[in-house]
Amino acid sequence: MSRMLIGVDWGTSSLRVARIDRPGDASEERAVPNGILSVPPGGFPAALADVCGDWLRNRDALVLVCGMAGSQQGWVEAPYCACPAGFADVAAHLKWVEPGRIAIVPGMRCEHDGMPDVMRGEETQVFGALSLLAMSDATLVLPGTHSKWVQVSDGRIERFSTFMTGEFFALLRRHSILARTMAVETAEDALDEHAFSDGVHYAMHTGNLLAAAFSTRTRSLFGQLDAGAAPSYLSGLVIGEELRSLQLSPNAGPVVIIANEALTHRYEVALSLLDVRSRSIGSEATWRGLGAIARHLENAQ
Amino acid sequence: MSRMLIGVDWGTSSLRVARIDRPGDASEERAVPNGILSVPPGGFPAALADVCGDWLRNRDALVLVCGMAGSQQGWVEAPYCACPAGFADVAAHLKWVEPGRIAIVPGMRCEHDGMPDVMRGEETQVFGALSLLAMSDATLVLPGTHSKWVQVSDGRIERFSTFMTGEFFALLRRHSILARTMAVETAEDALDEHAFSDGVHYAMHTGNLLAAAFSTRTRSLFGQLDAGAAPSYLSGLVIGEELRSLQLSPNAGPVVIIANEALTHRYEVALSLLDVRSRSIGSEATWRGLGAIARHLENAQ
Repeated sequence: MSRMLIGVDWGTSSLRVARIDRPGDASEERAVPNGILSVPPGGFPAALADVCGDWLRNRDALVLVCGMAGSQQGWVEAPYCACPAGFADVAAHLKWVEPGRIAIVPGMRCEHDGMPDVMRGEETQVFGALSLLAMSDATLVLPGTHSKWVQVSDGRIERFSTFMTGEFFALLRRHSILARTMAVETAEDALDEHAFSDGVHYAMHTGNLLAAAFSTRTRSLFGQLDAGAAPSYLSGLVIGEELRSLQLSPNAGPVVIIANEALTHRYEVALSLLDVRSRSIGSEATWRGLGAIARHLENAQ
Repeated sequence: MSRMLIGVDWGTSSLRVARIDRPGDASEERAVPNGILSVPPGGFPAALADVCGDWLRNRDALVLVCGMAGSQQGWVEAPYCACPAGFADVAAHLKWVEPGRIAIVPGMRCEHDGMPDVMRGEETQVFGALSLLAMSDATLVLPGTHSKWVQVSDGRIERFSTFMTGEFFALLRRHSILARTMAVETAEDALDEHAFSDGVHYAMHTGNLLAAAFSTRTRSLFGQLDAGAAPSYLSGLVIGEELRSLQLSPNAGPVVIIANEALTHRYEVALSLLDVRSRSIGSEATWRGLGAIARHLENAQ
């Protein structure tokens, strides 16, 4: 019988843990808002015990941690794996906090014309998604604060690019002059699909977000966009801007979207406007990726 | 002898007044931070008297107001003049607050493929600059929170475009994750010209600010950009992004920059990187524009 696997997805602003069965399904999951920025130096073991101390009492359990916990500001720094790299490369570069018991999955780095790009946590989701979908060649998008587009060939992550789409949206939604003509923000702004599509099209047409964004204000001034629809229009503008420069082909395979339901829906709509097919995977991709690493470790023994 | 002219440039966050001689030079100038957002409804006459009540005691003075004072949230709304429009069109559509004594200069509007764009105050600076430079055909840029690019043919403003360049910079500089790897903001961040130029080039090369902006973080992470230079690099990124889509030609006439010294310098450097010539005019353009309107009114009588 295999060891108990505790999966930990420790990001900047949240901490999720799961007991993971083989081949990588969560049998129990917990989430708390204790992201790495809220943990004092040296406080990582205690913060983890706070959320799953009962599981950790099993001294035979394997604990695999992915995400920003491996950054300079995290638990222990896990140096980036350089692209191109496959699943086995990442598994071979685990950073062991407690040898044989607790390990941090390294993030990845790549370069575009000498400019570095990085990710931490997304590599685990990508390998999990590939495992779930039984794919070894794919274009994947992981939307969010910093959206990642990842190109996989023959099971290896060849390259990826970061777009600050979610962060730009939040800055413009909350702190810019555009916020003045928008309805008050709710926990999850409802999507006005028509306004969203208008935004996607206008961003593609304009080709410059600095200019396109101002249309949110002028269309509001001239009664072409009401306060309730404006956040959806702005969301369409930033997601359209992200898609604009990717030169996605309707003839290529489907883009794999890894995100929560609300974001997945937005990207499905935006991609369909460009006649690009998509399929989607939720947060289970992380646990599936950690499960695959655990199996790899067991098989290597 | 002509009437005394009091010029008022009333923006969102500041109020500048000047006594203007013919042909349009300020003989005395005052500035206070009482922008229109700080003025209570009905409080505009008192707010103006606070800063130049002594001048207003001259009941024969002509008071010309430009800027956001003519907006819905301002003193009295002055409906936009539609492009294309020349100096005489704007002068003919003054909104009189006190007939013959106090007037607000209307802003302008234009359309790009059915999408409206607007400006208030910049039209006066443009007409002032044309008068100062004795030009009737020009491409002008008025950098700032909302940067305006204005195309003038035969003395008429044919079209213009707004870029939210200054606002994006401030949002990213202060509120984004990029702020964490930057030196503390000072009243006027000193320009690191090398980092600024790198930013301009990288924005032009990348073609998408959502992606290019993240390089500020990754270059900092990998020791390629220090905290003191990062704000200049980011400034180069946003200004480069503005210039990217304008398709400026080195063979066209010089771009006329209307701005304060610090911003003028940044645009001069950025344009020179694209081999585009420039010439510049400072804030005197506003007074010159109001002076020209006053002369026009006198000649029309």
